[in-house]
Amino acid sequence: MHSAVDAERSSSRAAATAPARVAVAGATGYTGQELLRILSRHPAVTVTAAMSSGTSAARKLPALARLWAGDITPLSVDSLRQAEVVFLALPDAAAAELGPTLVDAGVRVIDLSGAFRLTEATARARWYPETYRVPEHTVYGLTELARPAVAGARLVANPGCYPTATLLALSPIAAAGLLAPDVDVIVDAKSGVSGAGKTPSERTHFSEVHGSMGAYGVFGHRHGAEIEQGVASATGAATVVNFVPHLVPLDRGILATIYVRLTPGTTEDTLADVFQQAYLSAPFVRLVGSTLPEIKHVAHTNFCDIGWRVDASGRAVLVSVIDNLLKGASGQAVQNLNVMLGIDERTGLW
Amino acid sequence: MHSAVDAERSSSRAAATAPARVAVAGATGYTGQELLRILSRHPAVTVTAAMSSGTSAARKLPALARLWAGDITPLSVDSLRQAEVVFLALPDAAAAELGPTLVDAGVRVIDLSGAFRLTEATARARWYPETYRVPEHTVYGLTELARPAVAGARLVANPGCYPTATLLALSPIAAAGLLAPDVDVIVDAKSGVSGAGKTPSERTHFSEVHGSMGAYGVFGHRHGAEIEQGVASATGAATVVNFVPHLVPLDRGILATIYVRLTPGTTEDTLADVFQQAYLSAPFVRLVGSTLPEIKHVAHTNFCDIGWRVDASGRAVLVSVIDNLLKGASGQAVQNLNVMLGIDERTGLW
Amino acid sequence: MHSAVDAERSSSRAAATAPARVAVAGATGYTGQELLRILSRHPAVTVTAAMSSGTSAARKLPALARLWAGDITPLSVDSLRQAEVVFLALPDAAAAELGPTLVDAGVRVIDLSGAFRLTEATARARWYPETYRVPEHTVYGLTELARPAVAGARLVANPGCYPTATLLALSPIAAAGLLAPDVDVIVDAKSGVSGAGKTPSERTHFSEVHGSMGAYGVFGHRHGAEIEQGVASATGAATVVNFVPHLVPLDRGILATIYVRLTPGTTEDTLADVFQQAYLSAPFVRLVGSTLPEIKHVAHTNFCDIGWRVDASGRAVLVSVIDNLLKGASGQAVQNLNVMLGIDERTGLW
Amino acid sequence: MHSAVDAERSSSRAAATAPARVAVAGATGYTGQELLRILSRHPAVTVTAAMSSGTSAARKLPALARLWAGDITPLSVDSLRQAEVVFLALPDAAAAELGPTLVDAGVRVIDLSGAFRLTEATARARWYPETYRVPEHTVYGLTELARPAVAGARLVANPGCYPTATLLALSPIAAAGLLAPDVDVIVDAKSGVSGAGKTPSERTHFSEVHGSMGAYGVFGHRHGAEIEQGVASATGAATVVNFVPHLVPLDRGILATIYVRLTPGTTEDTLADVFQQAYLSAPFVRLVGSTLPEIKHVAHTNFCDIGWRVDASGRAVLVSVIDNLLKGASGQAVQNLNVMLGIDERTGLW
Repeated sequence: MHSAVDAERSSSRAAATAPARVAVAGATGYTGQELLRILSRHPAVTVTAAMSSGTSAARKLPALARLWAGDITPLSVDSLRQAEVVFLALPDAAAAELGPTLVDAGVRVIDLSGAFRLTEATARARWYPETYRVPEHTVYGLTELARPAVAGARLVANPGCYPTATLLALSPIAAAGLLAPDVDVIVDAKSGVSGAGKTPSERTHFSEVHGSMGAYGVFGHRHGAEIEQGVASATGAATVVNFVPHLVPLDRGILATIYVRLTPGTTEDTLADVFQQAYLSAPFVRLVGSTLPEIKHVAHTNFCDIGWRVDASGRAVLVSVIDNLLKGASGQAVQNLNVMLGIDERTGLW
Repeated sequence: MHSAVDAERSSSRAAATAPARVAVAGATGYTGQELLRILSRHPAVTVTAAMSSGTSAARKLPALARLWAGDITPLSVDSLRQAEVVFLALPDAAAAELGPTLVDAGVRVIDLSGAFRLTEATARARWYPETYRVPEHTVYGLTELARPAVAGARLVANPGCYPTATLLALSPIAAAGLLAPDVDVIVDAKSGVSGAGKTPSERTHFSEVHGSMGAYGVFGHRHGAEIEQGVASATGAATVVNFVPHLVPLDRGILATIYVRLTPGTTEDTLADVFQQAYLSAPFVRLVGSTLPEIKHVAHTNFCDIGWRVDASGRAVLVSVIDNLLKGASGQAVQNLNVMLGIDERTGLW
Repeated sequence: MHSAVDAERSSSRAAATAPARVAVAGATGYTGQELLRILSRHPAVTVTAAMSSGTSAARKLPALARLWAGDITPLSVDSLRQAEVVFLALPDAAAAELGPTLVDAGVRVIDLSGAFRLTEATARARWYPETYRVPEHTVYGLTELARPAVAGARLVANPGCYPTATLLALSPIAAAGLLAPDVDVIVDAKSGVSGAGKTPSERTHFSEVHGSMGAYGVFGHRHGAEIEQGVASATGAATVVNFVPHLVPLDRGILATIYVRLTPGTTEDTLADVFQQAYLSAPFVRLVGSTLPEIKHVAHTNFCDIGWRVDASGRAVLVSVIDNLLKGASGQAVQNLNVMLGIDERTGLW
Repeated sequence: MHSAVDAERSSSRAAATAPARVAVAGATGYTGQELLRILSRHPAVTVTAAMSSGTSAARKLPALARLWAGDITPLSVDSLRQAEVVFLALPDAAAAELGPTLVDAGVRVIDLSGAFRLTEATARARWYPETYRVPEHTVYGLTELARPAVAGARLVANPGCYPTATLLALSPIAAAGLLAPDVDVIVDAKSGVSGAGKTPSERTHFSEVHGSMGAYGVFGHRHGAEIEQGVASATGAATVVNFVPHLVPLDRGILATIYVRLTPGTTEDTLADVFQQAYLSAPFVRLVGSTLPEIKHVAHTNFCDIGWRVDASGRAVLVSVIDNLLKGASGQAVQNLNVMLGIDERTGLW
C-alpha cells in the first residue's frame, strides 16, 4: 500500500514549501548524533542550531563530516527560541526545565528524555523526583497509536526504547480485550549497549560486555512503569507487568519477548487480524507472524517487526524488535516531527 | 568449605590407584573436543580411545596439539567395549543404539545426547521418535540433585544445557513447595552459538548472528519437556513451563531468566535459605543473591551462578548462568564421572 | 563544497527525466541485496528485474519487506536484455559469460565479479583461468580515479573490496612519484566477515570467528594482483606489493594498513597536498590526516576515510577504511551507475 | 616429547617440598586477577598476600569466588617483604619504586610493568621518564629465550604482550642471521581490548569498539622500542622495526603479522629447522608452519603458535598468536616463576 516512490513524491511536495526550522539541544550523545544525521538529509527541514550543554565553544562532529557542515555550539535558550521545533536530547532534569520554557515561547518541543512520559503525577513523582510543570497539549508520542494527538501537540514526550518495542506488540491486543484477566504480563527485554548511552563505565567497558550478558534493574526500571501505563491506557484497567531488561553484546537493537495469557479461543489468526487492523496504514510496522523477527532486519532502520505464537491453551509469546537509536529514539522523534508538520510520515527515514 | 588445596589432595589420592580407562565416542564436535581437553589433564583417568563416526582414518586434532597426543580413530564398538566408562557425544539415534549395547557389555556410559533424558515413555516418544531400549540403572544426571543415583548408575543421561541452568535454580524452590499453584513458570533463556554445534548453517553464519538476536523453538523445543519433567519430579505435580530459547551473539554461555509466583510470605531470605541448604556441599554452585549473575563469571568454568529477586507481592525473578559446553555438557559429564568413580567431584575441573 | 541539499536537488533534476531501467542478476547474496536496497530508493532508476540463478520460481526477500515490493525471479538473459544497465553480482564464470553477451546486445554492464578487473591477459589467465572475451570499452571502475572513462564505458569492472580501500590511499602517492624505488609495499588488510559472502562454511561459522582472528591467502590472493596493477598504472613501473588479508570478528568493514618508504623530504604535509588535489571533487573520500580513521565511521556508508603518518626518515603508514559491501562493492557500483548516467555521483547514496 | 602426565608428576614432586610463599601487588586489574586465578591453583606456591593500591580495607573479588578464599588488602611493603617472590602488577612508576626496594630486602621480584624492560639507559629514559635504579641481576624474561638468566634473576622484567608475540617469531630468525640487511621489519599487530586494561574509557567503550577497528600509537608505542631491543640483541646490529598496533573487537588475544626479507636461498624449510632447533624443549611454543595460526587456538592458554610463509624471492610473512593476558602477561610471569623455582615450566599452566 505504501511504496518508496510515494515517499519520494511526498517529500518533494513538502520540500516545495519553506523548510521547517528545527534545532537540536544535546547533539553529541548517540541519540543526538543520530538525530543530526537524519535531519541533515531531511528534505523538509533546516537545522538552525545543534547545541551541547558540555560545549563551551563551537566545534565539529567528526562522525558527521561531509554529512552536516554546521558546528556544535554551546546551549543557548535564546537561539532555541528561534526554531519552530526543538528536539531535546538532554538529561531528564534539563529537559524538565527547558521543555515548558520553550512551549511558553511558542516553540513546539519533541523531548527524548523521560521527563514527560508518565502522565499520572504519583507515578511520575516516583521515577522522576524533580518538581516541574507539564505543559498543556503534552502528548505521549508512540506514533502509530497517537497520530492525531501528535499532530496537534505542543510537546511530544518521545517514548522510551523498551516501551516502544513492547507496546507496539502489546497495546493492540490489550485494546482488543484479549488479555486474560489477573495474569501477569512478562516482558523479557534484551538491549544492545548503545542504549546505555555514550559515557564510558565499567558496565559498558568492552571487556565486560563481550562474551557476556546480564539482567539489570529487576523491579526497578522506570520503563516498567511506562509500559504499565501504556497497557492500562489500552485496557482501562491496571495490569501487572513484570519487566526485566538485559544487556547483550551487540551495539544497536532491542528484542522484547512478551509472555501473555489470552482469553479462550484466541488464535494466531485472531492476533493477525488485530495487528493488521491496528497497523493498516503504519509504514514502519512489519508483521512477520510465526516466523519471529530478528534484530538484524531492523538495525539501522526505523522499522518495528512483530511476530507471535499462540498455543491451544491460550499461552502466547510475542516478539518485537527495533533499532533502539532509531524507532526507539531519534527515528521515532523524526517520525513524530513529520506527523506534526503534516507531511509523509516516512520523510527522511526511508 | 572447599578449597583448591583439598581438590588437589583428593586428586592425588585418586591418582594413587590405577587410572580409570575411559573412551570418547564423538570426539570432534565442540562437546567432544571439550571432553578430550578435560580428560587429557584429568589425573584419575587414561583416555584409551577418542573416536569419530565421520573419520575413516586416524588423525590429529590441531586444537589439542601438545595437550593430547593421541589420534582420533574411526568409531569401533569393539574398542569402546575395552573401556570402563564411555562418553557418548553422538547424535541421538547413534547414542540410542550404542548406549544399551555398551551397558550390556558391562561398560558404564555417560551419554551427552538427548536420547535417555526423558524418563516417561510418552514424552520420550514425542521428542525422540526412534524406538530403543532404556537400560536399567539409567539416571538423569543433574549432578547436584542426583549424586547417590549417579554414583550407582550404569548409564547417566547427561542433562541438556538449558535444563541444567534452569533446574539448578528452579528445582530447590519447587521441592520446597514455594511455587504458587496454577501459575505458569516462564523460562526465557539466552544461549551462545556454540550450543548449536559445529556444523555450519545459515543460522550460525557469523554475519547472520553478529549484531543480531532472535527467539526460536517457541512451544517446540524438547528442552521444555525436560524442564517440565524436572519441575514435576520436584513438586510431584505437573506445572506448565513456558520455555523460549534465544540465540545471542556470543560463543559460550547460557543465561536463563525465570519468572515465577511464590507462595505468600516468601522473601529473598527464604530463597537464600532454601538454596544454601540445597547446595551446602555443591562446589560448583555459587549463590550470588540479589547481585544477579553474569555469563562472564562462569565462561570457561564448570560453575553455575544463581541470583534472585523477590518483590512484596511474591513475584520472583531467578537468573542462572552456566558455560553451555562445560556445566551444560562436557564439564558436568566429567563431574558425573567423578561421582561414579567415588573421587572428589572437582577433579580435573578446577 | 558539496552538501546534502545539492545532492537532493540533483536527484530531483535527474528524476525529472525518465528513470533508467536497471536490472540485477544475482540479487540474493549480500552484495545483491545491498544493491536492491539502494536501487529501490534511487530516484533516477526503475528496477525492472532482480534475478537469482538459484531460484526456480518467483519469491520475496524478507529483509527487503516494505523497501522493495518486487519478486526475485529465475535468471533470464532475455529479460536482462530489456534493461539499459545490468548489474552482475554473480560468480566469476557466470559473469565472464554473461557480460560480453549483454554488451553485444547494447546493454551497459556493471560487473561486481572479478572477471574483468585484471586488464593484462597473462595476469588474468593466472587468477581467472576461464577463457573469455573482454568487450571493448571495458573500464576498471575505481570511480574517483576513472570518472571520464566510466562515463563512457560499456562494461565497468567494479573493483574488489581490498583494492578499493588500498588504491584510494596508495595511487595518488604513487602517481606523484613519491614512492621510494625498490622497496616493497606492504598491505596488511583486515576484513569483516560479510566480505566472505553468504554461504555458510567452517571459516565463517560464528563460533570459529568470534573471539578469534587469522591471516589467509598469503602470497595467493588475487586482490594482490589487482593492487599491483593499480600501483603499476599509477607509476608506470612494476612495484612489489606484499598483500596479506585477515578475517576479523566484525560484519562490515575493511581496514587496510599500508607501509611504504617515501622519497627523501616527503612529509605529512606533502601527502596532505597530494590527497587534497586528488580528491578535490570526490564527495566520498574524507581525509582525516594523522587522526587515523576507524571502521565505525564508514560502516553503512559509501565513504572511504584515509589517514597517514610519516616519520623523519620517510617511513609512512597509510590507513584506509571502507564498508566492504558499499564502497567496496554495491555502493561503488551505484556510484559508477551515476557517473554513467551523468547525474550527481551521490544520488541514492547519501 | 612433553605430556600432561609428565607435567602432573613434576608438579607432584614440587608439591612435596614446602610451597613457595608468593604475593601479588596489584591484584584487581585484569592481569592481577589472572595471576591470582593461576596461583590459587598452583601446587607449588602459597599466596601470602594479594594487595591493591586502590583498596583501603580488605575485600573479596567476586570473580574468584570459590577459587581463592583470601581477601584483597591495601598495599603494604612490610607484608610484601615476607614473601619469597613478589609479582608486581602495578603502574610503571609504582613498580619502578617498589622493585629495587624489595630486591634490596632479599625478595625476588617478577615485574609485569614496563619499568625494567628496556636495558639501555637512553631508550629507557625516552619511554619511561621517571628516574629510578635498575637492580643487579635484572633479566628481560622472555622465558623461552632466557631460561638460564631467569633461573638466577633477582628481578625479572616480564615482557610486554606485543613483544612476546613478535620476538618469539622474529628472534630465532634474526639470531640465525637470516634477515636481509637494510630492509625494514614491519610488525602489524592486532590486539583484543583486555590489553588496554580495566579502566573504562571512550576508546574501550563497547559501542565504540564493536563493529569497528583502528590503528593507534603509530611511531609512538614503546613496545616498538622493546621489539627493536630484542632484534638487536639477536643480531648484534640495529634494525628498524616499523610497529603498528591495532585494537580489534575481541577480548583476549594478540595476532602479530610480521613482514621480513630473508637472505637469498632461505626457504620455508630453513625456517622450520631454525624454529624446531630454537624451541626443542619449549612446551608452550607450537609451530604450525604454513597453516598459519589463529587466536582461537591460544585464547585462555599459555601457548604461542607460530606460522610462516616464504616465497621464491625471499619475502616472508610470519604470524604469531598469544593470549595477551596469559603468555602476554600473567601466564608468562608464572612460567618465569617456575623457572626461578627450578620446577617444571608448565606447573599451574597446563
